Amino acid sequence: MRTAVLSEPGELAVEERPRPDPAPDEVLVAVGEVGICGSDLHYYQHGRIGDYVVEDPLILGHESAGEVVAVGEAVSGLAAGDRVALEPGVPCRRCAHCKRGEYNLCPDVTFMATPPDDGAFAEYVAWPADFAYRLPESVSVREGALCEPLSVGLHVARRGEIGVGDSVLITGAGPIGLLAMEAARAAGATEIVVSDVVEGKLRRAEERGADATIDPRDEDLGEAVARHTAGEGRGGDGDAGVDVVVEASGAESAIAGSLDAVRRGGTVVFVGLADEAEVPLDVLDVVDNELDVRGSFRYRNTYPAAIDLLADGEVDAAGIVDFAADLDDVDEAFRRAMDPETVKGMVTIET
Amino acid sequence: MRTAVLSEPGELAVEERPRPDPAPDEVLVAVGEVGICGSDLHYYQHGRIGDYVVEDPLILGHESAGEVVAVGEAVSGLAAGDRVALEPGVPCRRCAHCKRGEYNLCPDVTFMATPPDDGAFAEYVAWPADFAYRLPESVSVREGALCEPLSVGLHVARRGEIGVGDSVLITGAGPIGLLAMEAARAAGATEIVVSDVVEGKLRRAEERGADATIDPRDEDLGEAVARHTAGEGRGGDGDAGVDVVVEASGAESAIAGSLDAVRRGGTVVFVGLADEAEVPLDVLDVVDNELDVRGSFRYRNTYPAAIDLLADGEVDAAGIVDFAADLDDVDEAFRRAMDPETVKGMVTIET
Amino acid sequence: MRTAVLSEPGELAVEERPRPDPAPDEVLVAVGEVGICGSDLHYYQHGRIGDYVVEDPLILGHESAGEVVAVGEAVSGLAAGDRVALEPGVPCRRCAHCKRGEYNLCPDVTFMATPPDDGAFAEYVAWPADFAYRLPESVSVREGALCEPLSVGLHVARRGEIGVGDSVLITGAGPIGLLAMEAARAAGATEIVVSDVVEGKLRRAEERGADATIDPRDEDLGEAVARHTAGEGRGGDGDAGVDVVVEASGAESAIAGSLDAVRRGGTVVFVGLADEAEVPLDVLDVVDNELDVRGSFRYRNTYPAAIDLLADGEVDAAGIVDFAADLDDVDEAFRRAMDPETVKGMVTIET
Amino acid sequence: MRTAVLSEPGELAVEERPRPDPAPDEVLVAVGEVGICGSDLHYYQHGRIGDYVVEDPLILGHESAGEVVAVGEAVSGLAAGDRVALEPGVPCRRCAHCKRGEYNLCPDVTFMATPPDDGAFAEYVAWPADFAYRLPESVSVREGALCEPLSVGLHVARRGEIGVGDSVLITGAGPIGLLAMEAARAAGATEIVVSDVVEGKLRRAEERGADATIDPRDEDLGEAVARHTAGEGRGGDGDAGVDVVVEASGAESAIAGSLDAVRRGGTVVFVGLADEAEVPLDVLDVVDNELDVRGSFRYRNTYPAAIDLLADGEVDAAGIVDFAADLDDVDEAFRRAMDPETVKGMVTIET
Repeated sequence: MRTAVLSEPGELAVEERPRPDPAPDEVLVAVGEVGICGSDLHYYQHGRIGDYVVEDPLILGHESAGEVVAVGEAVSGLAAGDRVALEPGVPCRRCAHCKRGEYNLCPDVTFMATPPDDGAFAEYVAWPADFAYRLPESVSVREGALCEPLSVGLHVARRGEIGVGDSVLITGAGPIGLLAMEAARAAGATEIVVSDVVEGKLRRAEERGADATIDPRDEDLGEAVARHTAGEGRGGDGDAGVDVVVEASGAESAIAGSLDAVRRGGTVVFVGLADEAEVPLDVLDVVDNELDVRGSFRYRNTYPAAIDLLADGEVDAAGIVDFAADLDDVDEAFRRAMDPETVKGMVTIET
Repeated sequence: MRTAVLSEPGELAVEERPRPDPAPDEVLVAVGEVGICGSDLHYYQHGRIGDYVVEDPLILGHESAGEVVAVGEAVSGLAAGDRVALEPGVPCRRCAHCKRGEYNLCPDVTFMATPPDDGAFAEYVAWPADFAYRLPESVSVREGALCEPLSVGLHVARRGEIGVGDSVLITGAGPIGLLAMEAARAAGATEIVVSDVVEGKLRRAEERGADATIDPRDEDLGEAVARHTAGEGRGGDGDAGVDVVVEASGAESAIAGSLDAVRRGGTVVFVGLADEAEVPLDVLDVVDNELDVRGSFRYRNTYPAAIDLLADGEVDAAGIVDFAADLDDVDEAFRRAMDPETVKGMVTIET
Repeated sequence: MRTAVLSEPGELAVEERPRPDPAPDEVLVAVGEVGICGSDLHYYQHGRIGDYVVEDPLILGHESAGEVVAVGEAVSGLAAGDRVALEPGVPCRRCAHCKRGEYNLCPDVTFMATPPDDGAFAEYVAWPADFAYRLPESVSVREGALCEPLSVGLHVARRGEIGVGDSVLITGAGPIGLLAMEAARAAGATEIVVSDVVEGKLRRAEERGADATIDPRDEDLGEAVARHTAGEGRGGDGDAGVDVVVEASGAESAIAGSLDAVRRGGTVVFVGLADEAEVPLDVLDVVDNELDVRGSFRYRNTYPAAIDLLADGEVDAAGIVDFAADLDDVDEAFRRAMDPETVKGMVTIET
Repeated sequence: MRTAVLSEPGELAVEERPRPDPAPDEVLVAVGEVGICGSDLHYYQHGRIGDYVVEDPLILGHESAGEVVAVGEAVSGLAAGDRVALEPGVPCRRCAHCKRGEYNLCPDVTFMATPPDDGAFAEYVAWPADFAYRLPESVSVREGALCEPLSVGLHVARRGEIGVGDSVLITGAGPIGLLAMEAARAAGATEIVVSDVVEGKLRRAEERGADATIDPRDEDLGEAVARHTAGEGRGGDGDAGVDVVVEASGAESAIAGSLDAVRRGGTVVFVGLADEAEVPLDVLDVVDNELDVRGSFRYRNTYPAAIDLLADGEVDAAGIVDFAADLDDVDEAFRRAMDPETVKGMVTIET
């Protein structure tokens, strides 16, 4: 079968690999669409992300969906012909994290396209049936693939305990920021402000319903947020600042500024990956204003909700896609995806 | 000023009373609209609700909004001309419940139209400024009055911890059931089933977006819910049953049936007032399926969110109103409101 | 190997069975002590518990600990010679409950001594290594076996969200009630009242540190609790009633009375198994006082904490044991365990 | 009456002031003991804490208890002769924070000894009755005064959601660190490690039951904690690191090191006030390990629990006291309190 393999930084090529056989508890899926994620691009450019180094050739891609073509003998509830979204991380099911339901923190997870585990830019993937979620008719395979970044957004909304009537600032209008916006609105947020330094992404956020946008090169983030949240009818909470900040940019200025933009007693969720590990933060502010600063890592128990939201038309995931390319053109697709104005590129695979 | 006073069961008349003066921390409000609540009707018919007995003539009405005409000397943040929704229960601010933020459980609350405290069927009400919430331009005075029953719905959704992707059964499609439906959807519920025994109310629920309706005279509640929740793409949770039941009817069969309709580990919220205090419940079911059965009493900290939702057009409150009558016709309005097909009647007051 | 097999109600005999071999992810444990649980007695007397019917001969016992004598090839972290407590329920690890960490609600659990799964009254048990918890030196094998009922108590305390400074009523001073008392105290409860109708059990609760005891035949449960909680210096919460009730008796009067004994806004946890499924409950009370009524089923993620508490001497589990008998005398041990004054009998197994 | 007034940095003198009269909802308290807090010392040395500047002479002291000598006409539940602990912060009772029960975040709080509000180094204080908590016989006036720092510790334990079986690292063994240790143990923590750079304070922590102590000048905090938590029988969670870190030192190295010492998915609570507002923190660690980093500011709803714990002998507060001095010797007492080996000095007031 055809796959897209990264052998060296910048060397991404379509290669033939043997088609896998499903284990007894697995399904064999003919992959239909795969999103190109920032982590794919990072491996493509640098050959590593932190401690994860591409030493052997690696099949990239972890945002995928397709059609079941065969099922292992122990599988029930799925059959050939079912369209499914694949959750790319399969945990050990045995450690204390897994038993507590925090399986995204499992240290022994198998995660697609994270060395040494191969990913989903492939005609076929064999995958545990309980991490393959059937799509109803009203959800497309593309939307199925986008359940992955949408899951990141849903997990962020849960980590931030975003609820009905909350005001939210999202810093960074890339795929995670835009889908966190969808998740926040689904959870009941009534005011959503988005900041970014790319003009096209701010326009994109506006088109998708942001109540306000901020370019932090034009005005201070905290002051801009204070202006937006001071106003009319928002409940008499004299404090400036939003209830929750979702930091999805990884930019040092946004990370530090998030503490200025949140109200007293509010919550900041970090999901963007900073270029520099160490960022100076105002810890006195954390104490005096009793802030919660929470990391959000991947997701857990989100796929069913993601699919329900897509089926209901409550969130728009497909609208973040800029282009789709065939698997044979994967290298060119990666180059397009690196354009700062691009939010999301997809790869389609015909079998 | 004119007021609507209940002197004996069935005897509701417009009477003149002296116009109140606002205390230093109060605003004086020219009331514009007041909803007729089931509790108003209950006092009207029976002269009492449980231990609360109308011994002296009582001004009814507690779902109200209007325009500020004067403010006490200690009031800031509100001024004459502001339109406000009035939260009808003002707690003691000093007991352990109030300090914990559970002020709806304060034993020393002053609550409009609950003996011996007068209500809002009056041209003017003087009320603590911090329980008067300014309405933005996009929210009408009628919607302001309906913040009260909407608050009941929002509190139910919080008590049930309804979240993104949840399935919900609402038993009883009166004003609380219908507004709990709005609150559940705002909180992210993706499947909402509504049951009632009045055909017109089921149609109403459908028109307002219920995914399914059940008439429990036609089919068993638990079985009907199992059928609706078994299906496609809802996340692979093999259990039948909804994540959360909101019991808003007070009917003994619905109260008992709610335990059959909820999934294992799910939550049932009781908000409807039962005619009979004691209802046989399957306590083995509560243990074996580890259910949560929670009461929901009035609301707390809901008005800001209610107003935000209305301002955003996220919920439709005004759509539950069947008719509006002038204060001078309040007795006739009460008679119309007692029709089982009526969901909500309003009284308008011109000053 | 010797095992204690129930073939018919009342027919419990020591029988030889083949010694199991551990699967790759299992350990083989030479069982040292096994507690006799109320469910064992119920199967012994009636041959069934609800829908669970003993159709084929069944090895009873699920409160067990012992010494590892062999490990499967995939096992790490445990070795022959380690003493371990066995958590008796092994879930499917794949369903939505398991993934959420609520593995006690898994519908496909394998649970010792629940038909058709054999239990631990046996010289050897092969068991998944991740449900075998190593005991530190300071914890005895007997205490290891008692981690099971202690886990029930710990889960009750979590379900009731018992915290520092809480007052707690425990109805029923059997093993679950007494160990829930230990768990409540470990979680910070500062006032614990215990009720029972067996004089000896009330004395037992007093000896183990109950602040007060109630015999509900002598005085009304709600009134007695009101008297105990009204008092001095307990924080000015004017309400009578405890913060949390743990209903561990299954008696209909205690189940109904629990709602009278809890304060407004408080929590009642049902863990006792009622003889009658349907018990009349005051649902108006649930609404007006905004109570939480929660079932508690078995436990999840409790063994590590149970072992830590025992290692620290924070809880006394062994003190609830009345007697221990050799496996060969298991039938006599069951007869003694049925005495209402008995709290806990143990069976010891020498290999 | 005599009071201890700070007029300039370093100028603390006993001065006569008029004895206050209680308002209708206040009690007049003859103060018996007052603790010397780090904030008192900071005002004494620097005349300011951040934006709070001592411009007019200020009575210091906010850790106080005494005996009621008169009650306002609206006060019930307290009478002359009652011994009470005074909670020093009285919030506005009207803002959104107060209504949500987060009254410690009220921007309009009156807080003893915070400019311009006078404190409790005075023979008499008039104080709202609902912030005066009656002490049972078994709790001394000294312990009543220490309810204040104990409340800080209890709030930290709540913010960290410390529960049964948790392991906790406390950085800084001053009064807050030592009382947070009491609170953590009361909440069920089974392993408590304490770090400090003052040898005498580490010994103090050991004497009070710390399971281990660390001097971070001798070994790396993260490594030392990993060594302490790796061990035997603590539940099979392969991760190194404690469940919760309480950062009570304000030292930059401890603040940064706290992220290394906590397990994946764990919680860090900042309560110590950093000398430098900005501290470089490893934000990638926060994301990848999905940490919670929470500020803890003062306390709310803690006094009843604090008194219950003291009454039960569950926590030892008085044991942190190094010395007590008469009000007339307050200046000398402040000098002794500044010794780094001192944990807590008290001032006693005889009337």
